[in-house]
Amino acid sequence: MTEQMIRSELSASTGFSDNRLNRRADLRDNPQAVAALAKRPDALTVLLAGDVPVLLRPGAANISPGTAARDWQVARPTPQGELLGAWFDLATAAAIAPARDQIFLGEDEAGAPRFGTAIDKMLAETLKDDPRFQVIDLRSIAFQKLLPTSDLGPLGEAKAMLDWHSRHRFCAQCGGATAAGSSGWKRECPSCTAQHFPRTDPVVIMLVVRGDKCLLARQARFVAGSYSCIAGFVEPGETFENAVRRETWEEAGLRCGKVRYLACQPWPFPSSLMIGCIAESLDDTITLDKTELEDGRWFSREETVSMIERRHEGQLVTPPGLAIANTLMRAWAYDGALP
Amino acid sequence: MTEQMIRSELSASTGFSDNRLNRRADLRDNPQAVAALAKRPDALTVLLAGDVPVLLRPGAANISPGTAARDWQVARPTPQGELLGAWFDLATAAAIAPARDQIFLGEDEAGAPRFGTAIDKMLAETLKDDPRFQVIDLRSIAFQKLLPTSDLGPLGEAKAMLDWHSRHRFCAQCGGATAAGSSGWKRECPSCTAQHFPRTDPVVIMLVVRGDKCLLARQARFVAGSYSCIAGFVEPGETFENAVRRETWEEAGLRCGKVRYLACQPWPFPSSLMIGCIAESLDDTITLDKTELEDGRWFSREETVSMIERRHEGQLVTPPGLAIANTLMRAWAYDGALP
Repeated sequence: MTEQMIRSELSASTGFSDNRLNRRADLRDNPQAVAALAKRPDALTVLLAGDVPVLLRPGAANISPGTAARDWQVARPTPQGELLGAWFDLATAAAIAPARDQIFLGEDEAGAPRFGTAIDKMLAETLKDDPRFQVIDLRSIAFQKLLPTSDLGPLGEAKAMLDWHSRHRFCAQCGGATAAGSSGWKRECPSCTAQHFPRTDPVVIMLVVRGDKCLLARQARFVAGSYSCIAGFVEPGETFENAVRRETWEEAGLRCGKVRYLACQPWPFPSSLMIGCIAESLDDTITLDKTELEDGRWFSREETVSMIERRHEGQLVTPPGLAIANTLMRAWAYDGALP
Repeated sequence: MTEQMIRSELSASTGFSDNRLNRRADLRDNPQAVAALAKRPDALTVLLAGDVPVLLRPGAANISPGTAARDWQVARPTPQGELLGAWFDLATAAAIAPARDQIFLGEDEAGAPRFGTAIDKMLAETLKDDPRFQVIDLRSIAFQKLLPTSDLGPLGEAKAMLDWHSRHRFCAQCGGATAAGSSGWKRECPSCTAQHFPRTDPVVIMLVVRGDKCLLARQARFVAGSYSCIAGFVEPGETFENAVRRETWEEAGLRCGKVRYLACQPWPFPSSLMIGCIAESLDDTITLDKTELEDGRWFSREETVSMIERRHEGQLVTPPGLAIANTLMRAWAYDGALP
């Protein structure tokens, strides 16, 4: 019953949101308990070389069995017909290289301990030559659906956390070297006693609509023909709704009235939380901020649908289903969501 | 019209959300332009000694005129019958003490430049003896309604930003000393070239309901008789909805089904963004996490209303109107909001 309810939530249909681990925060400050869990034969870890995931090829011994089968969105085979695995047993991971950081992610649905392990980022290149592994960036794993969604969530979580550790070796308050604590859930400064916690940056992303049309735009770095929602970081002192109005004004010169939250998405590039809204424009005339956006205009519902369905006459496309922009466009174009 | 729409938004009724400055992000990387704005005679700044606001007493010359009169929620006089001012002209602020940090907040509705200035935190005590000033922490200013809401928003924003500067003098990546850039909107490391941006921490706060009752709880640090919603930080890899379910499970032993976003609130203690939700409990039996919560139980709608209205038989109370917990309780108890 809960499962069905959660599925009806728009947030649950976004990439990286499917995360079924029981985080067991109660164990984080009990290093003996976590060390004992790490020694259990059913303990598994995802492995990242710097921030690049290392996946197991099917010939390898310890792909966690049956993961894909129980998933809503079954992972696709690679172009070579392989199904890849995200989980290593801890001894195998340790034999590849010493861990630079290791975090306790929690327990899976069967109660088995799950960890995240980072090894030296230089190894990403070396391990690419090893036939046991597929070494590939998280964005490609997600967009190519190389893993089931229930593995993508924990892998994204581990990437965000481990990347935070790698970029926070020192205390922002005093400059001293810090050390990981709470099984990877904080860093502590022995010099000034400051405690530092993983950072998550809220970002608003909005489908701005006006009657039967929506604003889509593209940055120069997007793949050719791809148009998406506009977005920007929430700043100190702002509500989501005010951030949506400010960003829409800054990027498109449109004043917005009503703003409604639809869905959110963890986005580990490097540590964002995308907050998806639909917003009502009070103006017709778009004035693009050309330093941020290469192009942008109003799209009719029909044109948007043709882009979602990959049958646009000019080969324009929306971001893929994994991206919350796609969720927002579908909610408006198919399901009639309004601000 | 926009004004009315924004007011109908639940987020707009929370404390610290009323922020009418035009942030003028386009000027932040133009130090000449911002320096010229700081020299304008209509430029004003809020002033904080460390993280404690310094307010002007009415005898003082430069309270920005008419601020309170145009506000929805007019500020209250102090117990001594004074109305206080938040805005100093820049020369007055500079004459009090040299700025440790100064940030460009934007322009007010009349186009006048607005800044935030921090002076040494040791001065909070010294300035308390100066009859020109009222030196008082932001929480008290807000709860006692000593300023109009439209000043509280920018003051909260300035506090969050300036406090971030004071705790981020060093580079988390390399330990080197950093310097402010972008008119206070980032810090830069000359040693490793890392850029650091102000941090905003998303926190979920939820009214958990079951039929005609809601879960309210209290921490030991709350004022006597005060019961509120439960809350917790969003962790990497979580949607709001999943964070609500996890925290409710951890703190109250209740499984939640549907979760619905209602409102959010900037909360500058030190830099949170409160994300207010209403959630449906699937269980009746509460099991409190006694390390976090001193007490908690189900409250009927009638009892909740009596607490909001300060006529509870046992003198129990809700948090004041400024707090988003109050907004959530009112939305459920008066307006029938459901998960």
